Amino acid sequence: MAYSMKPLGCDPARIKGMSERLIVSHYENNYGGAVKRLNLIEEELAEIDYASAPVFQVNGLKREQLIAMNSMILHELFFDGLGNESEPAAELRDTLARDFGSYERWRSEFIAMGKALGGGSGWVLLTWSPRDRRLVNQWASDHCHTLAGATPILALDMYEHSYHIDFGAKAAGYVETFMQAIRWANAGRLLGEFGKRGAV
Amino acid sequence: MAYSMKPLGCDPARIKGMSERLIVSHYENNYGGAVKRLNLIEEELAEIDYASAPVFQVNGLKREQLIAMNSMILHELFFDGLGNESEPAAELRDTLARDFGSYERWRSEFIAMGKALGGGSGWVLLTWSPRDRRLVNQWASDHCHTLAGATPILALDMYEHSYHIDFGAKAAGYVETFMQAIRWANAGRLLGEFGKRGAV
Amino acid sequence: MAYSMKPLGCDPARIKGMSERLIVSHYENNYGGAVKRLNLIEEELAEIDYASAPVFQVNGLKREQLIAMNSMILHELFFDGLGNESEPAAELRDTLARDFGSYERWRSEFIAMGKALGGGSGWVLLTWSPRDRRLVNQWASDHCHTLAGATPILALDMYEHSYHIDFGAKAAGYVETFMQAIRWANAGRLLGEFGKRGAV
Amino acid sequence: MAYSMKPLGCDPARIKGMSERLIVSHYENNYGGAVKRLNLIEEELAEIDYASAPVFQVNGLKREQLIAMNSMILHELFFDGLGNESEPAAELRDTLARDFGSYERWRSEFIAMGKALGGGSGWVLLTWSPRDRRLVNQWASDHCHTLAGATPILALDMYEHSYHIDFGAKAAGYVETFMQAIRWANAGRLLGEFGKRGAV
Repeated sequence: MAYSMKPLGCDPARIKGMSERLIVSHYENNYGGAVKRLNLIEEELAEIDYASAPVFQVNGLKREQLIAMNSMILHELFFDGLGNESEPAAELRDTLARDFGSYERWRSEFIAMGKALGGGSGWVLLTWSPRDRRLVNQWASDHCHTLAGATPILALDMYEHSYHIDFGAKAAGYVETFMQAIRWANAGRLLGEFGKRGAV
Repeated sequence: MAYSMKPLGCDPARIKGMSERLIVSHYENNYGGAVKRLNLIEEELAEIDYASAPVFQVNGLKREQLIAMNSMILHELFFDGLGNESEPAAELRDTLARDFGSYERWRSEFIAMGKALGGGSGWVLLTWSPRDRRLVNQWASDHCHTLAGATPILALDMYEHSYHIDFGAKAAGYVETFMQAIRWANAGRLLGEFGKRGAV
Repeated sequence: MAYSMKPLGCDPARIKGMSERLIVSHYENNYGGAVKRLNLIEEELAEIDYASAPVFQVNGLKREQLIAMNSMILHELFFDGLGNESEPAAELRDTLARDFGSYERWRSEFIAMGKALGGGSGWVLLTWSPRDRRLVNQWASDHCHTLAGATPILALDMYEHSYHIDFGAKAAGYVETFMQAIRWANAGRLLGEFGKRGAV
Repeated sequence: MAYSMKPLGCDPARIKGMSERLIVSHYENNYGGAVKRLNLIEEELAEIDYASAPVFQVNGLKREQLIAMNSMILHELFFDGLGNESEPAAELRDTLARDFGSYERWRSEFIAMGKALGGGSGWVLLTWSPRDRRLVNQWASDHCHTLAGATPILALDMYEHSYHIDFGAKAAGYVETFMQAIRWANAGRLLGEFGKRGAV
């Protein structure tokens, strides 16, 4: 199948503390690049004769497919979560307090995880785990690392393309800026939709 | 929170081609070990002062948490999917045919991916991706690699502890044996529950 | 170029606590498999037109090349280091004491690192780092992880194919057995050859 | 032991096509950050009681140690390799031609590998492998990936902090600029020193 780019989920001219150039470059080059690459990989995969393909070809292409797919999916969530400063709605705030001890504790863990990835690559994902019906802050150092069976509802991109144009090496400043620019309505909507799910 | 082991999802004395010793060792040592380790990691994480913790401690522990959580979740799915030889029910079979071209094409891809991981580590996951409302065979070379936001419905464990006791280095024989021992009802149930979900 | 298998560096019938079947399977299937795979990968790489190759093909194949090369190189060192129980010669023992505080401290770190990888995959490498003219115990969770510019002189294979046939999930028993079967003369020889090197 | 920063190996004001700001930020924040982090990790490691430490602590810290050490070592090589445009000396050029078919073939592979890592993270390393007495272009997607037992003589940093300040997402432009700024004398010196080594 052919994968399509989704429209940019935020208004790049109005994210406080991030330049339009940064966000448009991120959307077009990194997100758009992943979608284009994924389609080329799918074309290659469609041609494989799995009964005879060498193992390194299977491992090589299927790994590249996972990287591109996850980059596509996580970038969409990242952009959907950007907007004007806001607060989590009551249901989400209560769930954060229940699962992390307090909203402040959640926030301090999420921020520390972002800063800890500064200078490297990866994601911090607030994610709903149906096995235990709870929210988890999940570490990732590359696109492939995600919690099994879980649904991320908020994504902080820590690849350096997310901030270097504006912030240079000041990853901590970027993380603080992100925290002020979360469009919480999106995370709340996703929790409402997926958070009813438990393991079956 | 404290994580608990789930009861073994299959009858280890009745998996054709795999010994009870292999499956019980896998369940107790590898699955059980992950759950125990996860609980110890959670205790450490509960003590962290995120405002002052060094970055390597945050990255180190949160990564270990992800490894243990995913090992726990994927092992549960693996054991739940083992049983007597069976066939996928009509809905699942139709979905496989729709998303892979044919049931045989799905099977040949899944088998090739398993064999390609022989001698190393990882998982092959048949997984429902809500973004595109389709099933995907997903590559993993360690516990942390899963498709973002997706729900795995069938898991083939390719860590060598899954087969070496019985099969030695004959990973291909293990993969063929697994294909004859899939309890398809479990995958069908999960597709029925989660496969209605699309991106929202 | 074509890579060739080296003869097995130890006598597989005489490693105390490990069966001949285990070692011969390890040598033929895992080491031999890596060398064969590497040669096939090299053939593919020789055909690439780098000016036009898609990025996922370059990343996929070059990564598979690194995995196979390192598996080859590290397995050779592993087998070369197995033999009758012995003790490190004076020069090596002194260097271990200098760089780790004491020989016992080195041993306790090396053993703990091996046990910590039990149930997963990876290597523990005692390695000479020319930058700092010292020995380091280096962690690896897959074949690709090695200390930059360093020369490993002793390798403990923690992939489960190294022990499951004999030890099942009892990784700790395997690590203790390995410690009693180190042919220290090989590590001493390598230190003598490479340990004169410092950064230039 | 305490690790020290080496002086910057190039003149940051005179690398054609890269700004002083980019290179100084890279040196101070990314290289300097790795050295500082490594020293803190070493302090933690010195306190561990390996006989009783939980496995996740050992795996977590030893992995972070490897990341920081390799980041330190590879960054030093990267900066040492930057300078005025130059050509490889005869010995190095001949070795490249011998091991890659031609100098142009080497160059086209090295460039393609760099571009293929654009938008992600990693290194391209020209590295001397003593096992086969030859040069290899080695892929890395994170600091931990290096060829076992080999000595890198030229390093192209593809982490986005290497170029985003100047080039934004234009990774290809950065790679071309790097190729014009290689101080080949450094690679030649390292080959002269280490290239005599073969496996022993």
